[in-house]
Amino acid sequence: MNTTFLKACKGEQTSHVPVWFMRQAGRYLPDYQRVRSKLNFLDLCKNPALCTEVTLQPVDIFHFDAAILFSDILVPMEAMGLPLEFHEGQGPVFPEPVRSQQAAEALRIPNPAEDMPFVLETIRLLRRELKVPLIGFAGAPFTLATYVIEGGSSRNFYATKSMMFQRPELYRLILDKITACTSSYLIAQAKAGAQALQLFDSWAGALAPCDYERFALPYVQSILADLRKHTDIPLIYFANHGATLLRHTSGLDADVLGIDWRIPLADAIRQVGPHAVQGNLDPLALFLPKTELEARIAAMLEDGKAARGYIFNLGHGVIPETDPDQVKIAVEAVHRFSSRSKQS
Amino acid sequence: MNTTFLKACKGEQTSHVPVWFMRQAGRYLPDYQRVRSKLNFLDLCKNPALCTEVTLQPVDIFHFDAAILFSDILVPMEAMGLPLEFHEGQGPVFPEPVRSQQAAEALRIPNPAEDMPFVLETIRLLRRELKVPLIGFAGAPFTLATYVIEGGSSRNFYATKSMMFQRPELYRLILDKITACTSSYLIAQAKAGAQALQLFDSWAGALAPCDYERFALPYVQSILADLRKHTDIPLIYFANHGATLLRHTSGLDADVLGIDWRIPLADAIRQVGPHAVQGNLDPLALFLPKTELEARIAAMLEDGKAARGYIFNLGHGVIPETDPDQVKIAVEAVHRFSSRSKQS
Repeated sequence: MNTTFLKACKGEQTSHVPVWFMRQAGRYLPDYQRVRSKLNFLDLCKNPALCTEVTLQPVDIFHFDAAILFSDILVPMEAMGLPLEFHEGQGPVFPEPVRSQQAAEALRIPNPAEDMPFVLETIRLLRRELKVPLIGFAGAPFTLATYVIEGGSSRNFYATKSMMFQRPELYRLILDKITACTSSYLIAQAKAGAQALQLFDSWAGALAPCDYERFALPYVQSILADLRKHTDIPLIYFANHGATLLRHTSGLDADVLGIDWRIPLADAIRQVGPHAVQGNLDPLALFLPKTELEARIAAMLEDGKAARGYIFNLGHGVIPETDPDQVKIAVEAVHRFSSRSKQS
Repeated sequence: MNTTFLKACKGEQTSHVPVWFMRQAGRYLPDYQRVRSKLNFLDLCKNPALCTEVTLQPVDIFHFDAAILFSDILVPMEAMGLPLEFHEGQGPVFPEPVRSQQAAEALRIPNPAEDMPFVLETIRLLRRELKVPLIGFAGAPFTLATYVIEGGSSRNFYATKSMMFQRPELYRLILDKITACTSSYLIAQAKAGAQALQLFDSWAGALAPCDYERFALPYVQSILADLRKHTDIPLIYFANHGATLLRHTSGLDADVLGIDWRIPLADAIRQVGPHAVQGNLDPLALFLPKTELEARIAAMLEDGKAARGYIFNLGHGVIPETDPDQVKIAVEAVHRFSSRSKQS
């Protein structure tokens, strides 16, 4: 069992720097495409055998030091009672966005075992197969709220922000419910066997820091506090485009902060407080020629030495156009360079 | 003549804090909609009489302290020989994106007086009417390059970044040509009567700081150096989502740095070096109730006192859903609060 990832999360010494990539299971992999061609995305998310298969693929091929459950952050939003559709090339759509008191009150708090049994079954299946730790995950409440309030992706978050500014009680009702759903969902993942949990706050960077503090942070704090009561596995919080939020996120009771690529790693490490750090190569840097890619990774590993614990990752997910050979080069470089430097 | 804006750009004392809003002429205004309903967007951009009319509208209605030329950053890209289309609700499209040596070599450096006479004519017409300074503008080279290389807007800038990483000579050829075009375009605007010039780097925040330094910053430096040789009017550089780029942008030879809303104004002011500061209210904060909007503006004006010069603005453009009455409230608040505080 390779526990390097779990040790780095807790700031313990490791034989090498562990590495995994956000969206490491996904469309850039021909093996994934083969599975995905048989069924639509949401049906794939609900099929434990196939979710297990695609979760294992990148770990087997590239020797990542952790696996991340294959699923989507919006799965629990569907379980709250919201019809969810994925249209090819367009992203998620909620045809009935939540913008009224009535719609908010109609949201139900799912029972994960009853309403999302496929996720927990996938975790159990994966734990039988994996030789590396399994990361469970959920979306952070603000990010999830943007999808259900906007009805999908958004450019300027008009519906979400105008609700938070003009109808703060309604906003709070929706967020409280999403928060309760997310806590119980992650606790269920931990009980089913997830060995670390990551909260993805993909849209946190859309908020002014003063609004993040008021309209996003408290819900993250609430979930982390809930999780600490129920489990002692490592907790990771990733705020995308979150460099200017570090003053707030550095105080969070998480073990690890995930960092996106718009801030130099060394700068982020200086601002994360007592946290281990995970990140932050630009996913597009995987398009660099081999020697330049390796040089960039070497520099990051050097900077990472200053962290309480360092987990190599991208600053966001692998994009579909990525050449799998480049992923191989990157993972091998992290392992080779960090083993060498630990010996020296 | 109200020269408050020009004085603030140069760090001189003013009777009140000047205010203008990015996209202050635009779709949120019924008067603009009335003009725009008669013709398509690009035809409007090429009609000096109507461009003059829509530029004046917000200045007349809200008493902004500066006007900004009504145009689009992509107008000079069309003048470089690239067909440009605007589809309703979809944004700009270049049906023939520039991705080959041949396409890059085919780009021509326009002569502004011959190829974009309507812009210069608009400036001349506006100077006859305006009682506040007129700001000319252009897109910054990296931002313009993303549109012409991607063929339009982009999510992850795959075509641009993979070109910059894999074909740096081709990228440089395209950027050098866009830079030459932009310099001569802005110099022509100054000669026609623009009293300040702003470079919009809308997508700068998509770059890791190390890549910004290499693939975006040098072209901005080159344009600013060119402009300094030809004019002494204030130069403004706005890098959207640029908080983590301030280490680089604070060294630019501009008079003013525009700041987006994801960084507290006080933090930005501490990092801008010798520049005056322009920004940075979240455009969505215009949806706050009146008292909260005014409180937020009052706090920004307080923070702005620490700047070498302070120009109140949004952190990005006014969005179409904005209530004009809220714009009125904001502009009046800036004027009222800052006059009061200068007296005290």
